[in-house]
Amino acid sequence: MTKLWNDPATFTEDLVAGFLDANAEYVVGVPGGVVRATTTRSGKVAVVTGGGSGHYPAFCGTVGPGFADGAVIGNVFTSPSAAEAASVARAAHGDAGVILTTGNYAGDVLNFGLAVQQLRAAGIDARYLAVTDDIASAGPDEHEKRRGIAGDFTVFKIMSAAAEEGYGIDDVYRVGKAANAATRTLGVAFDGCTLPGADQPLFTVPVGRMGVGLGIHGEPGVSEQDQPRADELATLLVEGVLAEVPADAPRRLAVILNGLGRTKYEELFVVWGTAARLLREAGFEIVRPEVGELVTSLDMAGCSLTITWLDEELERLWLAPADTPTFRRGALRPEPVEGQRRDQSASTSSAHVEMVAGDAESQQVATKIADALAAIAEAMAADEEELGRIDAVAGDGDHGRGMVKGSQAASTAAREAVAGGAGAGGTLRAAGEQWAARAGGTSGVLWGAALTAFGARLGDAGRPDGAAVAEAVRASYQALIDLGGAQPGDKTMLDAWLPFTETVEAEIGRGADWPTAWTAGARAATEAAERTAELRPKVGRARPLAERSVGTPDAGAVSFARCVTVVAELYRNG
Amino acid sequence: MTKLWNDPATFTEDLVAGFLDANAEYVVGVPGGVVRATTTRSGKVAVVTGGGSGHYPAFCGTVGPGFADGAVIGNVFTSPSAAEAASVARAAHGDAGVILTTGNYAGDVLNFGLAVQQLRAAGIDARYLAVTDDIASAGPDEHEKRRGIAGDFTVFKIMSAAAEEGYGIDDVYRVGKAANAATRTLGVAFDGCTLPGADQPLFTVPVGRMGVGLGIHGEPGVSEQDQPRADELATLLVEGVLAEVPADAPRRLAVILNGLGRTKYEELFVVWGTAARLLREAGFEIVRPEVGELVTSLDMAGCSLTITWLDEELERLWLAPADTPTFRRGALRPEPVEGQRRDQSASTSSAHVEMVAGDAESQQVATKIADALAAIAEAMAADEEELGRIDAVAGDGDHGRGMVKGSQAASTAAREAVAGGAGAGGTLRAAGEQWAARAGGTSGVLWGAALTAFGARLGDAGRPDGAAVAEAVRASYQALIDLGGAQPGDKTMLDAWLPFTETVEAEIGRGADWPTAWTAGARAATEAAERTAELRPKVGRARPLAERSVGTPDAGAVSFARCVTVVAELYRNG
Repeated sequence: MTKLWNDPATFTEDLVAGFLDANAEYVVGVPGGVVRATTTRSGKVAVVTGGGSGHYPAFCGTVGPGFADGAVIGNVFTSPSAAEAASVARAAHGDAGVILTTGNYAGDVLNFGLAVQQLRAAGIDARYLAVTDDIASAGPDEHEKRRGIAGDFTVFKIMSAAAEEGYGIDDVYRVGKAANAATRTLGVAFDGCTLPGADQPLFTVPVGRMGVGLGIHGEPGVSEQDQPRADELATLLVEGVLAEVPADAPRRLAVILNGLGRTKYEELFVVWGTAARLLREAGFEIVRPEVGELVTSLDMAGCSLTITWLDEELERLWLAPADTPTFRRGALRPEPVEGQRRDQSASTSSAHVEMVAGDAESQQVATKIADALAAIAEAMAADEEELGRIDAVAGDGDHGRGMVKGSQAASTAAREAVAGGAGAGGTLRAAGEQWAARAGGTSGVLWGAALTAFGARLGDAGRPDGAAVAEAVRASYQALIDLGGAQPGDKTMLDAWLPFTETVEAEIGRGADWPTAWTAGARAATEAAERTAELRPKVGRARPLAERSVGTPDAGAVSFARCVTVVAELYRNG
Repeated sequence: MTKLWNDPATFTEDLVAGFLDANAEYVVGVPGGVVRATTTRSGKVAVVTGGGSGHYPAFCGTVGPGFADGAVIGNVFTSPSAAEAASVARAAHGDAGVILTTGNYAGDVLNFGLAVQQLRAAGIDARYLAVTDDIASAGPDEHEKRRGIAGDFTVFKIMSAAAEEGYGIDDVYRVGKAANAATRTLGVAFDGCTLPGADQPLFTVPVGRMGVGLGIHGEPGVSEQDQPRADELATLLVEGVLAEVPADAPRRLAVILNGLGRTKYEELFVVWGTAARLLREAGFEIVRPEVGELVTSLDMAGCSLTITWLDEELERLWLAPADTPTFRRGALRPEPVEGQRRDQSASTSSAHVEMVAGDAESQQVATKIADALAAIAEAMAADEEELGRIDAVAGDGDHGRGMVKGSQAASTAAREAVAGGAGAGGTLRAAGEQWAARAGGTSGVLWGAALTAFGARLGDAGRPDGAAVAEAVRASYQALIDLGGAQPGDKTMLDAWLPFTETVEAEIGRGADWPTAWTAGARAATEAAERTAELRPKVGRARPLAERSVGTPDAGAVSFARCVTVVAELYRNG
């Protein structure tokens, strides 16, 4: 289990600081992550990788010539925010566009997708590609729904090499798609990992058993069987990945045998001995295999086998030189020729939110809003462990931490906005921006959008009446729908948010004051959250894990209900 | 714990095969280990590192230009045999001599020391250097008694860079001594590792506690305290290593923050953030730190901080380029310029023992000897776990495995010798050579020497009488003393071997037949082995661990008593 931290709440910030110190020749820090120590040369497409932390060397350990131009670094197992992704992409961007790429997870897809929109709005040509290599997470007919696990490494490496060779952005994207289509991974887990500060692992595997089809965020396997010998495991993995040989597949393979953190090099080499033989017996030629820890999951025990069928272009890019803190290949240039050394002092700059002053009434409302956000932050801190436990049944257990980080950031931002004279709208916008920026993940971007939409409706003048509150609630709900990640019935927070919205509207419509309406809405949200236990998630979960989640409510719906209940209690009591 | 193996008995062979397959561009296998894929260029001193396996990337993961020329690979946590060390050294040697280097452990010192003698006898200029960086294992007044842990990496790297620069053997040895004298390490452990096939870890640390002063063979720490925060741990480690700043120490430091296997990169970076700050605040400048897994101990949880005070020469060598499977630094040559690619087919050759035929009587005796060795092998297989448990109290728990490997190899070799017509002497010599070669470790070299000496006295003609047996027993005992590792009273197998020898001699002297004398000797050995529980080891153990061992008998004495008892039972029953 994770044993070392200064404060679990600042684990990611602290590890990034140490990483930057130890690798100053390769990287500099920027808000949201790291970029190469040298600027991106003119005409070169920038490749920005990312996702949550806890996967080192992925993703910041492979920033450097021949590999990524930058890496966005979220909290452990949590998507970075859209603001963080856009920030790193802006810093990495030269003048030829930027490709953002992550494994295929709902939070990453939402946040990096929003970042691409922001970058395009700022005149930067940006694309997003999600890696979908995990064959255990969805069937071959749903390739696009699969998770990205260790195949991230191969796809990121190949895209980065193409960018280094001078490919235009369309061609970098094309080889990325081609590499992803040619990549398959199957993994197993012997034991789960423990988040910093948690006292139990995200999951456990019974002694002598093995989970098949692991995730790299502490998700358990999708099925379980007796733990095999090393050669039996090699057979299982090779047969698994070769079950989907594409038609007319090339005979040459890039292969990764990836350790998740606690399954050590010696064991991996024992497995590799058999896996390599089986792949050759199946008629394939292995091109520069990688056996080691490339995409980890803290100290999770387990490993995965990734193969990429290599045509001539993919093979050249797979073999191209690279020089990063953890991965080096081929001949290196003794001197950097491709960009200027960055000014490190510039790396600490941070975005600043412009503030509009509210009128006196709106400032009073803003104070109440700040009180409500403080109460929410307190409630989330108390519920963190329970929310993580619910989320870990079928996911990565990060929901509690994300809600704590987001609500605390929102509460602090709201207090600062109030102190600066902001009205209700400005306060909620500041809170929403900080929630999304600091929490990351799926819930972060959703809560950020919801608070911002709520504030936009309230505005910065006057005291809103019941109708305004009902409209603000509806606007928040609509903002979530517009983000496009899910629909009611998909076992997400929307399943609590919709009944809340409809109940508040109905109560206001029949003349109730807003605290009464809100209280009724909170009750409806709580009941609806409990009912999500009967649902099966439709998005963002591996199918077998989706099955497993039946019987457990959705963590996002539960936390939403808790938040609106806290606000109801605050105002019902004056 | 270690989960993946085909057969615990062939774990090392299997991992080496996988390692060679995955890294064929860097290394080829030779009997006993690996060497670079290219031959050593004329005029270049060869540097051969080694020790037991279980420490990857140490030691075979750092074979390549700028680093080691070869690595000897023993069983997990067990010294390779002298024959293996000499074999790898011969393969790595060009024409300018070879330096063998390991951490300072009794088994490595014995076996690599013997290998140096063998190499010199064969006309190869050879030296041996043992690294002694672990400040927890002995006081500053006993620097030469300290264990080698992660400081191995720094010292091996610096020596290797000197050899690559073209230093002569005296100067490579000189900078190795200088680097070792300037290197200090302090480590901590949170939990032990489990040997392949074992069902319990070598040691455990209570939850919330931490062992200070770990070894890298699963040895527990030398003291225990509450588990600190990351910054508190950094303070403990920095203050520990800085407690022994040499007089007029340079202000520039090579620094390694090494993870033992389960303490992951993210945690190491958090610790590094504070450690780097503290070192700078103490007035030191950090030169290219390494934060990661360099010298592991399977999946042991823990980490260590190593610093090396760098003068101008050591700094240049620390920074020199290197290109190995796991460690690369600086600008690399695009093409190998320093040697021819080796013929890989040559790498499977193995030494062959020359056989002398025995006369008919001696062949009958040889059959009995082979039966006795088979019985010993059976007994050691039954006792393996218990012997490992005893050994793990103050050591690395490898004794049972070593006895099993050695006795099985000896038994097989004896059967083959008998089938080939060998007499008693030839059979025991073949058995002794194979025991030493296959078991490695301290006990391997001792048992090998003892069997060989025993056989030399019996010869290959006639049936030995009681006096010959008594003389053979005495010759075996003398062979152990001549190896120079210990004296009776040091809590080693000698404490059982001496009473056995004296009792056999006394019984024969008063006219007993040899089975009766042997039986009496075995009884004396068993009692003496039990009495070793009262002793404190004088050699080969960190001082605090030596204290801990009081109350537990010596595993080598116990296994010796068991072996001679098995032989007594075999012949008493016909």
